[in-house]
Amino acid sequence: MHAYRTHTCGQLRASDVGQNARLSGWVHRVRDHGGLLFIDLRDHYGMTQVVVDPDSGAFKLAETLRAEWVIRVDCLVRARTPETVNPNLPTGEIEVFANEITVLAQAKDLPLPVFGEPDYPEDVRLKYRFLDLRRETLHGNIVKRTKIIRSMRRRMEDAGFTEYSTPILTASSPEGARDFLVPSRIHAGKFYALPQAPQQYKQLLMVAGFDRYFQIAPCFRDEDPRADRLPGEFYQLDLEMSFVTQDDVFNTMEPVIRGVFEEFAEGKPVTQQFLRIRYDDAIRLYGSDKPDLRNPIEMQAVTEHFAGSGFKVFARMIEADPKTEVWAIPAKTGGSRAFCDRMNSWAQGQGQPGLGYIFWRSENGALEGAGPLAKNIGPERTEAIRAQLGLAEGDAVFFVAGDPAKFYKFAGEARNRVGFDLNLVDTERFELCWIVDFPFYEWNDEEKKLDFAHNPFSMPQGGLEALNGQDPLTIKAFQYDMVCNGYEMASGSIRNQSPETMVKAFELTGTSKAEVEERFGGMYRAFQYGAPPHGGMAAGVDRVVMLLCGAQNLREITLFPMNQRAEDPLMGAPSEASTKQLRELHLKLNLPN
Amino acid sequence: MHAYRTHTCGQLRASDVGQNARLSGWVHRVRDHGGLLFIDLRDHYGMTQVVVDPDSGAFKLAETLRAEWVIRVDCLVRARTPETVNPNLPTGEIEVFANEITVLAQAKDLPLPVFGEPDYPEDVRLKYRFLDLRRETLHGNIVKRTKIIRSMRRRMEDAGFTEYSTPILTASSPEGARDFLVPSRIHAGKFYALPQAPQQYKQLLMVAGFDRYFQIAPCFRDEDPRADRLPGEFYQLDLEMSFVTQDDVFNTMEPVIRGVFEEFAEGKPVTQQFLRIRYDDAIRLYGSDKPDLRNPIEMQAVTEHFAGSGFKVFARMIEADPKTEVWAIPAKTGGSRAFCDRMNSWAQGQGQPGLGYIFWRSENGALEGAGPLAKNIGPERTEAIRAQLGLAEGDAVFFVAGDPAKFYKFAGEARNRVGFDLNLVDTERFELCWIVDFPFYEWNDEEKKLDFAHNPFSMPQGGLEALNGQDPLTIKAFQYDMVCNGYEMASGSIRNQSPETMVKAFELTGTSKAEVEERFGGMYRAFQYGAPPHGGMAAGVDRVVMLLCGAQNLREITLFPMNQRAEDPLMGAPSEASTKQLRELHLKLNLPN
Repeated sequence: MHAYRTHTCGQLRASDVGQNARLSGWVHRVRDHGGLLFIDLRDHYGMTQVVVDPDSGAFKLAETLRAEWVIRVDCLVRARTPETVNPNLPTGEIEVFANEITVLAQAKDLPLPVFGEPDYPEDVRLKYRFLDLRRETLHGNIVKRTKIIRSMRRRMEDAGFTEYSTPILTASSPEGARDFLVPSRIHAGKFYALPQAPQQYKQLLMVAGFDRYFQIAPCFRDEDPRADRLPGEFYQLDLEMSFVTQDDVFNTMEPVIRGVFEEFAEGKPVTQQFLRIRYDDAIRLYGSDKPDLRNPIEMQAVTEHFAGSGFKVFARMIEADPKTEVWAIPAKTGGSRAFCDRMNSWAQGQGQPGLGYIFWRSENGALEGAGPLAKNIGPERTEAIRAQLGLAEGDAVFFVAGDPAKFYKFAGEARNRVGFDLNLVDTERFELCWIVDFPFYEWNDEEKKLDFAHNPFSMPQGGLEALNGQDPLTIKAFQYDMVCNGYEMASGSIRNQSPETMVKAFELTGTSKAEVEERFGGMYRAFQYGAPPHGGMAAGVDRVVMLLCGAQNLREITLFPMNQRAEDPLMGAPSEASTKQLRELHLKLNLPN
Repeated sequence: MHAYRTHTCGQLRASDVGQNARLSGWVHRVRDHGGLLFIDLRDHYGMTQVVVDPDSGAFKLAETLRAEWVIRVDCLVRARTPETVNPNLPTGEIEVFANEITVLAQAKDLPLPVFGEPDYPEDVRLKYRFLDLRRETLHGNIVKRTKIIRSMRRRMEDAGFTEYSTPILTASSPEGARDFLVPSRIHAGKFYALPQAPQQYKQLLMVAGFDRYFQIAPCFRDEDPRADRLPGEFYQLDLEMSFVTQDDVFNTMEPVIRGVFEEFAEGKPVTQQFLRIRYDDAIRLYGSDKPDLRNPIEMQAVTEHFAGSGFKVFARMIEADPKTEVWAIPAKTGGSRAFCDRMNSWAQGQGQPGLGYIFWRSENGALEGAGPLAKNIGPERTEAIRAQLGLAEGDAVFFVAGDPAKFYKFAGEARNRVGFDLNLVDTERFELCWIVDFPFYEWNDEEKKLDFAHNPFSMPQGGLEALNGQDPLTIKAFQYDMVCNGYEMASGSIRNQSPETMVKAFELTGTSKAEVEERFGGMYRAFQYGAPPHGGMAAGVDRVVMLLCGAQNLREITLFPMNQRAEDPLMGAPSEASTKQLRELHLKLNLPN
């Protein structure tokens, strides 16, 4: 017989009744039922009920067992009586009678209980992560995470991609976020950097002719801890393709991502055909380039109804500045003064002067638009607004006015708030879409210059010609995001692989050719020697896993995360370096006083 | 029609003749055959011959094409004439006639030719790695590497393992090689470290109940560059299993590794049942714990034949020191004075006084042992040696004498030399074996204390009892290597998961319990709370790929390697940090004068 087990704790079935078995696992729980001991024995694969009766030679030892001890049990498989069958447990048709029990490892008093998963402070959970990870929810999330990543890999391979690992010790990149640096021992005073993303390497792979690259890529950014980003490292499903247009990327990746979502959505509906929404439209309709399409609310401009109206605040703004627009956020079923006032208070809490509204009620059998704005603009304009928005009795509408570039974010937040508060959002589904046609440049008002709106390596629509002739702020990029339920899942672009176009694109932001050569030497050099048209994207693995696990915190889907102070209490990182280490690395500490 | 291609350059076949196609790729070579231009068009998938005749509208442009330009070709697929069919090319039955050619990207004069793969200095190859990687051999090696890793992954998954990614920013480990450090910005004066291997994390995963872990794991060691190790990072197929014995690890991993080898050995035979060779036997038979079993030579002790013999050098050594042994290296077909003298010279070149030998020839129809040693010990002893070793006319034997602990390495090298020089080694095969029963401790003669011979986390055979009662230098460990063709492929052990045994094992090396707690805090703490018996191993991915690609240099199987000075000439790493970066990291440079 095997030294430790003939079966796992999730394996025995009714068909095994009458067999002898050997199981090993953790003591999940011991219950004493009037002399009979019931031990829930747990391993990675499941749970089996071990029964020890007082006649068993194992009884005396069994009485000493404590939670989380590791034991080996030699036993006989027996059928449970019909009334004790547990249909929620795969092994629930049987139980095993212990003949002999061997303690493989004891456990001290637990600083963190496993059974029952009671809430515990995060630092205890992280310091005793090996116990925390035994808990059913976290254990399950981690296993689900590995399955999601495995599914991503298989789907990418089936789509003709090959996984290449790019270097982790590489050069500091002067764009983007802050790098983690790694001092070189051999080259005094010099540093490697951990990659923020394999962007340049994947483009070099295309120039090297590898055609379809992907990688479950570790990425590193030394950013201040944020609620939605763990300190240190995170993972991207990174990919790049040669000889493709934007549509090719969409048509290739949509089935991959949809497939992953459908596989792990546990029956929740997943968008079958991802909408492709222009950036400008997303802002206008949803007030966000990360719209939550589970929310049915679409905003509309109703500026004309306020121009010259009796609501002077809006009317004067419209008159004073041609940029002014008034956007309406229709709120079906929101037609009560209580709800409208609550929204108004919420807006004030967000630092806004308030949130104008109209709601429709029945007054003496007739439909009436109510609220201060309705009074100010009068019944005709009120009715025109209602008709435009298709609203009815019991509905409401909220208004934001001004320069859309300044208020759209707030409008989008109000849209979310209305949607969730009125239960208009079906949270039990995954709504995915593409956002396309992002602006290539944006205006940096502080430095009075153009900046790249997103990725400097993206191809401007219209190419060199557009850069030479067009108002730069009207140029769009072949740049796209994939969005799910209001979160950015992925971002990508068709790359600008022409050295001339690249230099021109940077020149418009005030960056000289010499600077481009210095900063992006490897890639700029590569583009001189036959670079194919190419494009790709990167999807946030952690975010996808979070959504599919329904987790609210990245630490609930990460094996050994750091805490929000960028510390690992389990392994004791970061820690002090020895004098010898510092000397070898040609470094001295420069500590704050 | 697609913007870039209807087919790849490796796709068209005789069945496509008569079709219009669009191809994109690199100009591999242009040949001018009396007015007709032949362009070998290359992409990741293969090569297609493009024909441009002077009547084609594309002819004028085609004349301007240069190597490595990226072009798009609209063309008609035609059958080649029988005499021009190229059976070595998958597309060799067809060629395409170009109607239109579009240049997608030009290439400057190449610093490194792609076609023909002429030898070029390494730093040019690394600086222009994107060109180097287009070359057939390197491109093929990299693709093979990805396929090998993919195969490892699939086989591990099929064997019930799950891939978990462990942290890359972690704590400095005080054992083993030198760490790469990563200064913390948030914690002034503190450092993360890159993992030398996920050893502690994988053991923590077992304690956390994940049962079967594997990872294609990036590992980092800041070691001085060596011919057989790239600076910086390398990859391991790392794995760990719970509730297993050493045999379970062997029985699980042997099919995985054999399967990978068989899949990629291109028909070369692969060992079907790996021998399990005790460390002591490996040293005695092969003079190495990494024996090359393609070499049929097995050494034997022949001490008795020299004790009290006329060969005074050996006889006196044997008399003076009971540790003295004489080992024989039989050399079938090596029976010529010329070969024996050549081996003797080689040995002197290795710093040895020489290499005694006997060879057998036919003299006047009788078998005669020849050479100075045979004369000294006389025909009877010579015949006894021949009989013991089973040698015959035309064979030879070499002798090394002294303390085996001191000479075994040289004996092993001599065995290799004899085997290769006499063509006794069948190089066209993969011979795999396990080396088992490594010593747990070794004697540190300098510090006059015990050291761990290998992994301090291995379980000593006999456990705590052996540590308490047995001569420590006789204790074996449940520690094993997998060896192929004389190279260590993998190393592993059953772990010492008992806190008491761990403390005792360290105590014998002069390390106190307090030090163990401090150095291995995470793991030592974990072992207090129910650690299952577990074991595993780690295989060197790069080494496996090198063997299966028949490559001699790690840079021939690595995408973007650093050079031997730990520099990346392509991306310019390492590089100087800015004053702002140093200040943020609380560091000052401490440069040598």
